[in-house]
Amino acid sequence: MPIPPLPAVMVEPVVRAALLEDLGRAGDLTTDAVVPADARTETFLAARQQGVVAGLDFAATAFRLIDPAIEIQVERPDGTRLQPGDRIATIRGPARGILTAERTALNFLCHLSGVASATRGIADAIAGTRAQVCCTRKTMPGLRAAQKYAVRVGGGANHRFGLDDAVLIKDNHVAIAGGIVRAIEAARAGSPGIPVEVEVDDLAQLDEAIGAGADTILLDNMDPGRLREAVARTAGRARLEASGGITLDTVRAVAETGVDAISIGALTHSVTALDVSLEVHPWQS
Amino acid sequence: MPIPPLPAVMVEPVVRAALLEDLGRAGDLTTDAVVPADARTETFLAARQQGVVAGLDFAATAFRLIDPAIEIQVERPDGTRLQPGDRIATIRGPARGILTAERTALNFLCHLSGVASATRGIADAIAGTRAQVCCTRKTMPGLRAAQKYAVRVGGGANHRFGLDDAVLIKDNHVAIAGGIVRAIEAARAGSPGIPVEVEVDDLAQLDEAIGAGADTILLDNMDPGRLREAVARTAGRARLEASGGITLDTVRAVAETGVDAISIGALTHSVTALDVSLEVHPWQS
Amino acid sequence: MPIPPLPAVMVEPVVRAALLEDLGRAGDLTTDAVVPADARTETFLAARQQGVVAGLDFAATAFRLIDPAIEIQVERPDGTRLQPGDRIATIRGPARGILTAERTALNFLCHLSGVASATRGIADAIAGTRAQVCCTRKTMPGLRAAQKYAVRVGGGANHRFGLDDAVLIKDNHVAIAGGIVRAIEAARAGSPGIPVEVEVDDLAQLDEAIGAGADTILLDNMDPGRLREAVARTAGRARLEASGGITLDTVRAVAETGVDAISIGALTHSVTALDVSLEVHPWQS
Amino acid sequence: MPIPPLPAVMVEPVVRAALLEDLGRAGDLTTDAVVPADARTETFLAARQQGVVAGLDFAATAFRLIDPAIEIQVERPDGTRLQPGDRIATIRGPARGILTAERTALNFLCHLSGVASATRGIADAIAGTRAQVCCTRKTMPGLRAAQKYAVRVGGGANHRFGLDDAVLIKDNHVAIAGGIVRAIEAARAGSPGIPVEVEVDDLAQLDEAIGAGADTILLDNMDPGRLREAVARTAGRARLEASGGITLDTVRAVAETGVDAISIGALTHSVTALDVSLEVHPWQS
Amino acid sequence: MPIPPLPAVMVEPVVRAALLEDLGRAGDLTTDAVVPADARTETFLAARQQGVVAGLDFAATAFRLIDPAIEIQVERPDGTRLQPGDRIATIRGPARGILTAERTALNFLCHLSGVASATRGIADAIAGTRAQVCCTRKTMPGLRAAQKYAVRVGGGANHRFGLDDAVLIKDNHVAIAGGIVRAIEAARAGSPGIPVEVEVDDLAQLDEAIGAGADTILLDNMDPGRLREAVARTAGRARLEASGGITLDTVRAVAETGVDAISIGALTHSVTALDVSLEVHPWQS
Amino acid sequence: MPIPPLPAVMVEPVVRAALLEDLGRAGDLTTDAVVPADARTETFLAARQQGVVAGLDFAATAFRLIDPAIEIQVERPDGTRLQPGDRIATIRGPARGILTAERTALNFLCHLSGVASATRGIADAIAGTRAQVCCTRKTMPGLRAAQKYAVRVGGGANHRFGLDDAVLIKDNHVAIAGGIVRAIEAARAGSPGIPVEVEVDDLAQLDEAIGAGADTILLDNMDPGRLREAVARTAGRARLEASGGITLDTVRAVAETGVDAISIGALTHSVTALDVSLEVHPWQS
Repeated sequence: MPIPPLPAVMVEPVVRAALLEDLGRAGDLTTDAVVPADARTETFLAARQQGVVAGLDFAATAFRLIDPAIEIQVERPDGTRLQPGDRIATIRGPARGILTAERTALNFLCHLSGVASATRGIADAIAGTRAQVCCTRKTMPGLRAAQKYAVRVGGGANHRFGLDDAVLIKDNHVAIAGGIVRAIEAARAGSPGIPVEVEVDDLAQLDEAIGAGADTILLDNMDPGRLREAVARTAGRARLEASGGITLDTVRAVAETGVDAISIGALTHSVTALDVSLEVHPWQS
Repeated sequence: MPIPPLPAVMVEPVVRAALLEDLGRAGDLTTDAVVPADARTETFLAARQQGVVAGLDFAATAFRLIDPAIEIQVERPDGTRLQPGDRIATIRGPARGILTAERTALNFLCHLSGVASATRGIADAIAGTRAQVCCTRKTMPGLRAAQKYAVRVGGGANHRFGLDDAVLIKDNHVAIAGGIVRAIEAARAGSPGIPVEVEVDDLAQLDEAIGAGADTILLDNMDPGRLREAVARTAGRARLEASGGITLDTVRAVAETGVDAISIGALTHSVTALDVSLEVHPWQS
Repeated sequence: MPIPPLPAVMVEPVVRAALLEDLGRAGDLTTDAVVPADARTETFLAARQQGVVAGLDFAATAFRLIDPAIEIQVERPDGTRLQPGDRIATIRGPARGILTAERTALNFLCHLSGVASATRGIADAIAGTRAQVCCTRKTMPGLRAAQKYAVRVGGGANHRFGLDDAVLIKDNHVAIAGGIVRAIEAARAGSPGIPVEVEVDDLAQLDEAIGAGADTILLDNMDPGRLREAVARTAGRARLEASGGITLDTVRAVAETGVDAISIGALTHSVTALDVSLEVHPWQS
Repeated sequence: MPIPPLPAVMVEPVVRAALLEDLGRAGDLTTDAVVPADARTETFLAARQQGVVAGLDFAATAFRLIDPAIEIQVERPDGTRLQPGDRIATIRGPARGILTAERTALNFLCHLSGVASATRGIADAIAGTRAQVCCTRKTMPGLRAAQKYAVRVGGGANHRFGLDDAVLIKDNHVAIAGGIVRAIEAARAGSPGIPVEVEVDDLAQLDEAIGAGADTILLDNMDPGRLREAVARTAGRARLEASGGITLDTVRAVAETGVDAISIGALTHSVTALDVSLEVHPWQS
Repeated sequence: MPIPPLPAVMVEPVVRAALLEDLGRAGDLTTDAVVPADARTETFLAARQQGVVAGLDFAATAFRLIDPAIEIQVERPDGTRLQPGDRIATIRGPARGILTAERTALNFLCHLSGVASATRGIADAIAGTRAQVCCTRKTMPGLRAAQKYAVRVGGGANHRFGLDDAVLIKDNHVAIAGGIVRAIEAARAGSPGIPVEVEVDDLAQLDEAIGAGADTILLDNMDPGRLREAVARTAGRARLEASGGITLDTVRAVAETGVDAISIGALTHSVTALDVSLEVHPWQS
Repeated sequence: MPIPPLPAVMVEPVVRAALLEDLGRAGDLTTDAVVPADARTETFLAARQQGVVAGLDFAATAFRLIDPAIEIQVERPDGTRLQPGDRIATIRGPARGILTAERTALNFLCHLSGVASATRGIADAIAGTRAQVCCTRKTMPGLRAAQKYAVRVGGGANHRFGLDDAVLIKDNHVAIAGGIVRAIEAARAGSPGIPVEVEVDDLAQLDEAIGAGADTILLDNMDPGRLREAVARTAGRARLEASGGITLDTVRAVAETGVDAISIGALTHSVTALDVSLEVHPWQS
């Protein structure tokens, strides 16, 4: 099933703000001066590298907010795997509006496609294992819902959306609460009925966490050997999530240890934009 | 001279929005349950890798908006070169507030320090040449002013801030306007008194652009040999800016061709966050 | 004459905010997972109890903001008296959008219909007397214009809309100003040309208020006997408004004392929602 | 443990909007005219009926936003059980500011205390059973986080905060999806790892839901006999939640059937405000 | 009595928006480059021409939002008549902040003082007559509350604040409603209890309006002779307001006709800013 | 070439805010009561005096936001020179919406046309000289982009849009920086590559500014004789801008001194609205 789109009421405000940030106090000096008011054009959003497209609704909203007369015809919807040269969408209409919205549309599309592409890469690398790749709260300020959507498009799962939808006891909580057991007990009492996840740094803490009945345990910065040991020791009594500096190169080895989830902050905090461009000239794919 | 900070009225709204995005509809379930209301703590923002710090005002604003009783003492202000283990700032006060604001504060600090660090790397690499590194409009939606500030902190210059503060005629404008000369003439007529920059793909276009009196010429995707030829041909009649896929590895060679500026979109569109953490435990630097 | 609707620019922002509050950071998990993207449905807004409908524009705006393809056909417009089973409107279109907007639409419709129904009940109870029912500033934060509209739909009048459109001297003002006469004189001097209303607790204060030339006198917490005495004593020299814990059971007796207005805070501060539901199944009325 | 307060960044925007709604375009005509600029006063927030206080932060924010010189000293914090005459807080400072903010402060305090009081009433009534009272998404538009907080203060639990933090398959979803089993399967596939709740109307549907592995089953509009039968039949294979027109009078009987949770929309959609007043005169409790 | 100030919650948002509009995406390039970060200065707001000061809260808010360390000491508060050279306030503190906020502070102060000064001029000119000067809804978009406040400061009264706080039947309403009498009757029915004002162009319409019981009659574009006739004819049966192109030169003659009010749109739609400057050098008054 | 319009995303928010300011909490009492819901009308925006029209997009947006069914047909677009009686546009559709939006639409149109008309008057007066008229940052808070647009429509140029898009060293900067030369040097160092403008009061300062290499020099409050001397002395080494109390009467003499630009704050800070009205009656032009 394709990933359901975000509702327009969620997409529009962030695109509107991005457009205003780019238009400033005088609008598009270049386009207004150089492009005749009645010029029309047909352009293409085209991939210049391999990846997964995400964010077409954001891009389309940028064009439509600048000029409702611009038509967007999507050829490769969010989630499609792209090859260099693939045409993603056709954008037709008043040339001024298309050029004025171009950069904002691409800023969303290239960034969100970058998120989806990196996620897809990880998901492919661990295919066949029980592990699922997921993102974190290490997101770009103001873009959390958009980035989390792009992670889903790339085949990943969303960990917590915010501080309010799950309990995750991290090392600093443990330090202040005075130990893992006390922290878990306090969480159970304070947020009854909500699954409790706790971060552990070593196997002794793991034992404590299992003993205190944690639902999920975040194994922080452990190498595959240690992770394998943790999986064996846990023996299914808790869901295990590996975390900490895991990359495309190391993720397969991590996944093969038998953990349930692998969370990677870099999916959203260190994104390499996917190279997508708007081509005015006829395009040969 | 240190880079002047952004005024608080520019910083606060974006931090406020980021906090609300994280707090959701119930606030910080974990901290509220696990940390006693009267617990106080002393924590440190500490670098885990080499780089340049940027965004401390954003981080401090996150802490202060959550609890005005939190004190922030900056030890290494924006622009400081960091070594792993360097203490950047001390954060003291109510433990709940510090932990609730932690992620939002770090999201700004790690991202903006990432921007500054990458810029600093480029600036160092081209030191001694006439070239200056600058960023583009390929920014994260909603974060343009913040990212451009971080580029300045890292020793870079800001190209246009938006569509409204300079003329930059790109390939798509040229295509629609019907040639470089016509585009430049239209820009001169439509935006008198504003310097005109134009993008060219080859030396023939360069000649056209010089002939039409462009103030700055963007040399897109040319290798060092071609750039050197362009510099010679221009002979000072226009400012030259190199652009297109330039990386830390290739930038020195580009700078040595004699161009005046090198613009790199990746400084803001493909940022690797700098690893900064909040340490509750006493920290030995 | 039907009550004129509020302009869309007043309705849309409050509905948009309510939708975002419900959609959170990931949209409608259930509907997106369970309902096929191309499913269409025909649904009905139907009354489950007796009352007066109000707020259809708010409900329709919720549906349209989620998906402009949703069609709303109103069968019983705002102000209509409903019987259980009455069909209020037909909502047709993409099933996902209808289900996603359902709760927000109903939250407005049930609440505002609750306000209108309670008002209508009071208005009916005092029919034939000179008294008019009106609401107060005891409203739900953020919903004042909407609630006041619903009061009008239910046959009531709106007292002040805010602190800025009339003078109402309450007991605390009198206490600080040093007496009713001084308060009225100060009000006349400070807000010339604006009608002055003053709250009194007993007949001695009533005499003072009349003597000082109050335009309207709020008779606070008086029983019908005392109210009747007040009406007689005033002899038309001021408009009289009864207030304080008046309910559907007691309002007729109050109205028959001859007061001009009866203000009831509970119309907006203690609202019982009208039971309206969205029915997917064919509905027999 | 007392319920942790909502962060100020969540409270302030809604209070600010409520104040602006009341101040309109000219501010407080009455107070400005009647109360001298230099008058100071000491006032008390006092309960006029029995209940539970909630929303003091909202009230205090209203006073402080109008005049930072106003001091608020809380005597009975959120969650305290009140008797008529109990003094909740003392508000001291510039008289104008106190009177201008009074209505907005009380609108929050009376409403949220009303929510907490009703919840407390239910929680007390079912004390000793395994059932927990919880609220729904039937909230006042714009006040969801505030109302849900008040439910917690009153001893209740929060069901979903929005469409995005849990799966709840309702009758309309079932109707469109083509049956309970298909709906649950689709939810599992579309939102892996998220607990699934489904609404059932009769015992046949209950069996289907259990068979399909629902985590929680919402038993809609069943009488205690039927509920008891459902509890027996389920035999712990799913969490059971009773719902539908349950009131203070009927809730004990429902709780004694053995269900795990009782959700009551009226806790937030049909709130009777708690009578709290601001007293300028010395107050004898 | 001095005109009460607008509450800070009304002032701050409009000042914040104005600052952001001026700061753009990079802040104050000039001050940041030219003024040392630790420079402090003492400056004076000084009148350069005769007039009435208004808007000091807006100016002070601009300084404080840029830097809370800036101290503002008001020497001539809103409403004071100024002579050229009069010192209005002293502004002390960090030089950067003072210079960055200067233009925004002055834009409010010069404009609002311009409004107050013009109003004061009219009010002085008609002193001793029964007429009062008032403003209209012809205001600068976004500045209505501020401009209306400045009118009060200048000794004028505020006509309607908006479409929602009074009935004013204008020529276009009469044209569509089919005559003055029908329009007044409809207004009475639709907005019971609200005073009705109607615009008339000649004495025949005046008679109609009086006959239909208008509370206030707006005499549009009549010369003093005609106005005098209208006053005589009305004989106190309605409040009379003269309007239409009345200037400082003609207003005394209009006021002496005996009308109750004179409304002048130009007070807010065609404002000449009062010349106030910020002086860094010691200032001799 | 006609001045390009501002994008709708820039126009809509300011119009929306203005409408809400006028509608308040109850909408248009008069129109709702007096005009039948189904009445339609044809109206005309008509000039009552000579000038230049500007702001039709703002006016049209006001009508469309109130009722999308209103049609606007522009007959004399922005920039057209108007004679009294000229029909500017035809507005057709539901009478209620047209009357409700009328004042907001006119407030924009009359103000912005006032700006354009005054600018046009200056531009005409200096036609044939080398001087260009330009505006300043002395704008109405919240309306900078709109006013600057109107200046362009009137044939003027826009000086800085804000503090962030150019360096302008004013007298207060010079005073704090310790002289013109030091200020210019600091600006060059702090904002490399950005043209530097500096304000001078006399010819000695002019020499200093030229010596320090200022790009543009603002000649403040000099009479034509002094300006002529400044032009001769500068001999093309810097761009010269005259400023300070220049009016339509004196501008030609200033322009003939040979300066390059003349900046006039009054174009935006002291605007006389152009008299444009909405006529319901058939109109003979």
